[in-house]
Amino acid sequence: MKDLPGTPGTLSGLLLRLGQCLFAAASMGVMVTASGFSNYTAFCYLMASMGLQMLWSMGLAGLDAYALRIKRDLQNPVLVSLFVVGDWVTATLSLAAACSSAGITVLYDKDLGFCKTQHMPCERYSISIALAFMTWFLIDISSLIMLWVLALSST
Amino acid sequence: MKDLPGTPGTLSGLLLRLGQCLFAAASMGVMVTASGFSNYTAFCYLMASMGLQMLWSMGLAGLDAYALRIKRDLQNPVLVSLFVVGDWVTATLSLAAACSSAGITVLYDKDLGFCKTQHMPCERYSISIALAFMTWFLIDISSLIMLWVLALSST
Repeated sequence: MKDLPGTPGTLSGLLLRLGQCLFAAASMGVMVTASGFSNYTAFCYLMASMGLQMLWSMGLAGLDAYALRIKRDLQNPVLVSLFVVGDWVTATLSLAAACSSAGITVLYDKDLGFCKTQHMPCERYSISIALAFMTWFLIDISSLIMLWVLALSST
Repeated sequence: MKDLPGTPGTLSGLLLRLGQCLFAAASMGVMVTASGFSNYTAFCYLMASMGLQMLWSMGLAGLDAYALRIKRDLQNPVLVSLFVVGDWVTATLSLAAACSSAGITVLYDKDLGFCKTQHMPCERYSISIALAFMTWFLIDISSLIMLWVLALSST
């Protein structure tokens, strides 16, 4: 199982976790600079979800770095089950947050045309949402790998 | 692998697929009766996504029923890989559609208060979205089971 890229306690796993932290932090950073975001429930939810994602990925990145340093194998079924559940929950929350925010941005941009007429910072909203989708993509890869590792370790 | 509930070619798998069809059809049915839904990109996307989900689940339900009737085993790795990819894509699209529509409904209901003042059919939107979330939940279960079966069959 050690050969599979992205598994816990490997360098590729660590890089995947750091990528998730980076994109989640960037998404939050861009959203904070967009004025009036706090008036919208979906954008606040995106911030909360990216914050949770960042904490979760940072924790697992720390664990990966520690396992790499002391050359310890993290792939026992109980630990992997915990990673599967956590990854699945945070991946679902990240996708839900990105999509609900994207729904509102498309509504304002295409359906109502408010981005031009009301001078809303739609570009910043879009960049933040794109970064959230990147975060989701990386956490989804982690989540699929974890489920795969758990299935293999259960045999 | 035949013992795992929800795997292709089993009665529980067939029931899961029929449930997905039913909830997707109900979600589309309720949305169609809500006036003005076609003015919103997200609601149109929800209709398209639920339509795709219904077709996919109906196809697989037919295949499950056929396999049950002729007592054929559907669990070869190539077929299961196809199911994994299809389930994963449709599950992601369903969640994305449900969340983007939910984002707009929350915006109109909580943030702007349009549901009361503008007499929008927010209740119907909400019921349709809730049914879409149920569809996603069932397809997500299928998708996780398929990935599990694929991982087991690869060993």
